[in-house]
Amino acid sequence: MEIVFKNIMEICQDNQEIEVKGWISSNRGNNKIRFISLNDGSTVDNLQIVLSNEQFNLEEVAKWKIGSAIIVKGQFKLTPQAPQPCEIKAVEAQNIRPTDDDYPIQRQEINLETLREIPHVRHRTNYLRSIMLIRSTLAQEIHKFFEKKDFIYVHTPIITSNDGEGAGEQFIVDDENKEPFFSKKATLAVTGQLHGEAYATGFSKIYTFGPTFRAEKSNTKRHAAEFWMIEPEVAFYNLNQIIQLANDLLKNVIKNTIKKHPKEFQFLDEKSNHTLIKQLDHFLNSELQIIEYQKAIEILQKADVQFEDNNIHFGLDLATEHEKYLTDVYFKAPVAIINYPKEFKAFYMYLNDDGKTVAAFDLLVPGVGELIGGSQREADCHKLIERMKYYNISEQDMKWYLDLRKFGDAGSAGFGIGFERLVMYVTGVENIRDAIPFPRTFGNLKM
Amino acid sequence: MEIVFKNIMEICQDNQEIEVKGWISSNRGNNKIRFISLNDGSTVDNLQIVLSNEQFNLEEVAKWKIGSAIIVKGQFKLTPQAPQPCEIKAVEAQNIRPTDDDYPIQRQEINLETLREIPHVRHRTNYLRSIMLIRSTLAQEIHKFFEKKDFIYVHTPIITSNDGEGAGEQFIVDDENKEPFFSKKATLAVTGQLHGEAYATGFSKIYTFGPTFRAEKSNTKRHAAEFWMIEPEVAFYNLNQIIQLANDLLKNVIKNTIKKHPKEFQFLDEKSNHTLIKQLDHFLNSELQIIEYQKAIEILQKADVQFEDNNIHFGLDLATEHEKYLTDVYFKAPVAIINYPKEFKAFYMYLNDDGKTVAAFDLLVPGVGELIGGSQREADCHKLIERMKYYNISEQDMKWYLDLRKFGDAGSAGFGIGFERLVMYVTGVENIRDAIPFPRTFGNLKM
Repeated sequence: MEIVFKNIMEICQDNQEIEVKGWISSNRGNNKIRFISLNDGSTVDNLQIVLSNEQFNLEEVAKWKIGSAIIVKGQFKLTPQAPQPCEIKAVEAQNIRPTDDDYPIQRQEINLETLREIPHVRHRTNYLRSIMLIRSTLAQEIHKFFEKKDFIYVHTPIITSNDGEGAGEQFIVDDENKEPFFSKKATLAVTGQLHGEAYATGFSKIYTFGPTFRAEKSNTKRHAAEFWMIEPEVAFYNLNQIIQLANDLLKNVIKNTIKKHPKEFQFLDEKSNHTLIKQLDHFLNSELQIIEYQKAIEILQKADVQFEDNNIHFGLDLATEHEKYLTDVYFKAPVAIINYPKEFKAFYMYLNDDGKTVAAFDLLVPGVGELIGGSQREADCHKLIERMKYYNISEQDMKWYLDLRKFGDAGSAGFGIGFERLVMYVTGVENIRDAIPFPRTFGNLKM
Repeated sequence: MEIVFKNIMEICQDNQEIEVKGWISSNRGNNKIRFISLNDGSTVDNLQIVLSNEQFNLEEVAKWKIGSAIIVKGQFKLTPQAPQPCEIKAVEAQNIRPTDDDYPIQRQEINLETLREIPHVRHRTNYLRSIMLIRSTLAQEIHKFFEKKDFIYVHTPIITSNDGEGAGEQFIVDDENKEPFFSKKATLAVTGQLHGEAYATGFSKIYTFGPTFRAEKSNTKRHAAEFWMIEPEVAFYNLNQIIQLANDLLKNVIKNTIKKHPKEFQFLDEKSNHTLIKQLDHFLNSELQIIEYQKAIEILQKADVQFEDNNIHFGLDLATEHEKYLTDVYFKAPVAIINYPKEFKAFYMYLNDDGKTVAAFDLLVPGVGELIGGSQREADCHKLIERMKYYNISEQDMKWYLDLRKFGDAGSAGFGIGFERLVMYVTGVENIRDAIPFPRTFGNLKM
């Protein structure tokens, strides 16, 4: 049986002979006894290996360096009196691959910027290990959430000839030769939504989970050139129903992830001065705040704060400072803002009866800002064409998308979650570069 | 409660009042009674809606076209005497979005080439619907398989500066301006393996599931420019262990998928003249064949067949015709070929003691060819550099990858599954263009 450290207390019995494999986190002791902390990556917790001079040449063992891969056979021992619940009394141990002296993770307290230079090893610190373990579980829980609700997982294309939002800089794709690979201009997808809508018409409930790209030449803590998005699309749904789905998804996925990572959340909570768990619990145990854009404007107008852009009026495109006030100061919780002025939302959003606003929502969360953006889609072909004209989007290029409206479009609604932002919100990470294994940002392409 | 047709027999009771939503597959009857076949995309099976002239203006209902989105309220009725197990006796029905006359899916028997011109609607045929439902379940089952085995899901980068295999044409990525977005040449990943190895060192067991790209200017039934790959990597594993993982994965995932799609497999099995299920069952119920490359050569030498390349000798790079003979004629089953001559395998594969072969495997399956390729990795830094020199791979560019060998590399093994090829094998689809929603191939970029 393969033993995984995170479950070792459940699967092993006192005095059981077992074999464990992992990497050395620390190696201390004297010439009678040595203690090696071993980690296998399944948990942030280390397993203590005890080596005595009766079985081992401890002078040799003392030379085993941090980061080395070792295999240990020994007895599993429950240690209810000790700080750690169990340990392995080693009988055999083999250092199968020692580390060179320049192994960079010699201690835990390396600053995050230094670690960003070595994305191929930084996950071997407790902090990045915790984040990436939680990231993996969040992704798996998202798939399970949708599967349970009978959603079809659709792989929308990465290389595309569509612009999606009519906004955002795009990457161009081609091969190195002069003759183009495709018959037309090819770009990397900024969204899977439009293709997702095609599949929602026919499959009713679909979701995507894939990489998306923005060639924005900016360097912020919340933007990356390559990031993963989850985009559900549901036929027959309206704005209210899709917001409830977003709320369900977040609460369900966060709750299950916390349950699976007691050690990692304990670690991250301490790092956040015990604000992380409190904040997540607050969200899990309260109703999602849903407010009209109009109401958000009123709150901001009454705010006892000097904003950089203090011209607060209906028609203001909320900036980070305004969103931050709403989530971090006023509500101290996630908030969904709905029914934005149509001028600064995408062409495909459903035009409300007032003729001024669209049935869109942005879900903002403390510390991160916009986590989710979504809308009910405009199902009326004529209104859609009007809106496309306003944005100068070519009807010819979007013929296939307009087709959907003619071929039994049931009306649909959907949203996109920025997966790295979800990771940031759930782990308390402040920079998107630490929420994805190998971050890609303007001017920065490591490995 | 939201009703999904695939479970309707389990969740609804005789005479229960329910609401259903979907798209019209057929509409027939007379001026007393009409029968609408409705599909909601959850299954290839349609639900029969019965409308009588007591409640409805059937002249109007007769005009409702195939593909239109309708909402129906009525009584769920068990119909044990009828060909279908249940039907809905409609009380209210609303045609919320009629189709235009040019809706292309007017009948089921449209040839696949025509359907490839309309990827935004072709999933509304029974054939493509079945394939895409199975595709979705295969993906979800793959995630569940790895989660159950404590694998960490890693998103390796799509935009990369590494070539991976040192083979295969790559797409170049940049933005439209003259000033490059990244500080060096950026390409689309052909594999996530090298980055996956970095994460396996520290996390022990990882897998990727993401898109990969090849700018090969060829048009075959088995190659696409954009396709999804699953790449597990396991520290401390050797060739034999990783082949067992591949075998476990395939059998587990295929078995569970068949169980979840009785209707879709029944449909596809009929389309295949009842060869599909038989072939899959045979694989599920037999041991995986594992043979040495040397042995494969001997089998081919003895074969009573005239190959186009009939110069069968140790050192032959097996062509499709040879692989086809092994899987379709000789073994009539999947077969793993191991220990290939090092000359035509990648630099990172473990050099066997004979100095001639590497610890690689290709898993070939009937009708599809190579489904999986994998290997034990070379953990010895010096041997690795030797192999890189042979292939003219820059040591400087790969410094980070060589780092892994110095930083406690435990030795690892892994493989890559071409997801579309898995879909082809499991559904019996013969062209990769029908195994992915929006296929991208040389010269072809629709939507």
